Amino acid sequence: MNIEMIDAAATRIVGHAQLTPLLSSPFLDAVAGRRVLVKAECLQHTGSFKYRGARAALTALPKGTKGVLACSSGNHAQGVARAAAELGLAAVILMPADAPRIKLENTAALGAEVVTYDRTTTDRDAMAAELAEARGLDLILPFDNAQVIAGQGTVGLEIAAQAGVSEADVLVCCGGGGLTAGVALALEARAPGLRVRPVEPEGFEDVAQSLVAGRIITNPARAGLCDAVLTPAPGKLPFPILQRLCGPGLVVTDTQVLAAMALAQDRLKLVLEPGGAVALAAALFLPDAVAGDTVIAVATGGNVDREVFIRALTEGASHANRAA
Amino acid sequence: MNIEMIDAAATRIVGHAQLTPLLSSPFLDAVAGRRVLVKAECLQHTGSFKYRGARAALTALPKGTKGVLACSSGNHAQGVARAAAELGLAAVILMPADAPRIKLENTAALGAEVVTYDRTTTDRDAMAAELAEARGLDLILPFDNAQVIAGQGTVGLEIAAQAGVSEADVLVCCGGGGLTAGVALALEARAPGLRVRPVEPEGFEDVAQSLVAGRIITNPARAGLCDAVLTPAPGKLPFPILQRLCGPGLVVTDTQVLAAMALAQDRLKLVLEPGGAVALAAALFLPDAVAGDTVIAVATGGNVDREVFIRALTEGASHANRAA
Repeated sequence: MNIEMIDAAATRIVGHAQLTPLLSSPFLDAVAGRRVLVKAECLQHTGSFKYRGARAALTALPKGTKGVLACSSGNHAQGVARAAAELGLAAVILMPADAPRIKLENTAALGAEVVTYDRTTTDRDAMAAELAEARGLDLILPFDNAQVIAGQGTVGLEIAAQAGVSEADVLVCCGGGGLTAGVALALEARAPGLRVRPVEPEGFEDVAQSLVAGRIITNPARAGLCDAVLTPAPGKLPFPILQRLCGPGLVVTDTQVLAAMALAQDRLKLVLEPGGAVALAAALFLPDAVAGDTVIAVATGGNVDREVFIRALTEGASHANRAA
Repeated sequence: MNIEMIDAAATRIVGHAQLTPLLSSPFLDAVAGRRVLVKAECLQHTGSFKYRGARAALTALPKGTKGVLACSSGNHAQGVARAAAELGLAAVILMPADAPRIKLENTAALGAEVVTYDRTTTDRDAMAAELAEARGLDLILPFDNAQVIAGQGTVGLEIAAQAGVSEADVLVCCGGGGLTAGVALALEARAPGLRVRPVEPEGFEDVAQSLVAGRIITNPARAGLCDAVLTPAPGKLPFPILQRLCGPGLVVTDTQVLAAMALAQDRLKLVLEPGGAVALAAALFLPDAVAGDTVIAVATGGNVDREVFIRALTEGASHANRAA
């Protein structure tokens, strides 16, 4: 992995991916006690940065590729489905049969063939390998894929060009670490004073713990509010990049996440999903854990359940008001 | 009013105003039956285009100006307050004492001196004139001010550069007509195949009726869901521009507005206020009233009450689902 791969990915996605704005609000600055710049990656096609990695990976496939296969119940599914449709490639997405209906429908509506499996009885990875082999499809992993990481790294190229500051912590919502690693590689080359910090929800801090331990630590798999970032462990490909380039991990509570969602809605007019709001939550509510006059937070979206939305508007807003 | 004034305003606000993105979603295209491009002006500072006009007007004041006065219970207040604070000018904002507390607080928090009056007993315009005279302040009208219209016109310059189509209807949320007139003037010069159409909520279609009648028609003043665009009549300065350049007005129902808010949240990750969603509502739900393969809608934000937000998530989403 190197900056040349990210630059090459950028040339393949430019004009297709949204160049997302870096937003700010004096009201957020007041909560954080420093300037807060928000990379509004929720405005990316399909609502999250996953489209960048998907388009970068699909455009790097050899000519004559028949199609692609991805396993995901969420944003990676929709990113791959959309990029494949744009490129005229078949896309098969393996999703758990009990995934939220809206995610199944969205993925199909973007043109993918959705194949469901029973989480309780099926070995997903074996099923994926078998299906890929049988149908002659290329498997696109969500973060253990160098071209996916290069695509996510284009978020870092844009931050380097937009930030206008030479030193700051850059807080990134972290699941498997593809986005975090890509952004860190881009900033190492283009804005070395911007230090990347992975952010995770409390109880799911496998990346923070892995960075401390110096080896991959795995969380038990279980459900939580911030479903988009609940990967049980950092990916094998991202992890050494995180070790080399990233500052200590940060951990936020669900209450802080709901408050960050409420403030993003009220002050930035952005709808974030819980997993996409963890970095902003850290920027706002962990002032002592962050250095400098300015902090940059990457914020991403996805499908937000109505119930979660209303919790953000009620519980989240109450917490935000107390913090303001 | 001419394009040179808009270009000049653009040079004064560049680097201060956000260059807001033009967003799209295949899910919105499916609802509308054509491509829908959304100018996400809700991402502007203070949540609405009003900041552009305010900054353009305040930077056009003569040197030695002591400060400014504006009358507004909403977005114009916050735009003027922020622009004044940036420029080191005093700002006095005259607001009704019964305006929503959050709007009073936001305006004050942006650095303005808020002066309240009793709507039932006070002649606001007389009070404003008196206060401006006594304190030596320049009165900044929300739309009957050429520099304000020029500032709003920078939205049109950006649309011309971003749209990538030579023919389309451009739907604009219309209150007094400052934004609509500014955008129309910019597009006349830079993208003459883009035709501006003002959009209003049902029961408040003074602009549509005025365009039909060929003279200014006034709605009775009353409250409604789309408070940001409920100006009783088009402004004297915008109206002849609308007559010369704009296509027939469009009118949407509150239900369509709530559905547009729900779809903007779900598909674009944008929080719109009702008055800022009327143009998107027309793009989505009045397919027969619009021409061409592509429609462009300007969408803006502002302060959204929690109750209205929840209505969008419930009633609005139901209507959107039925339409999809």
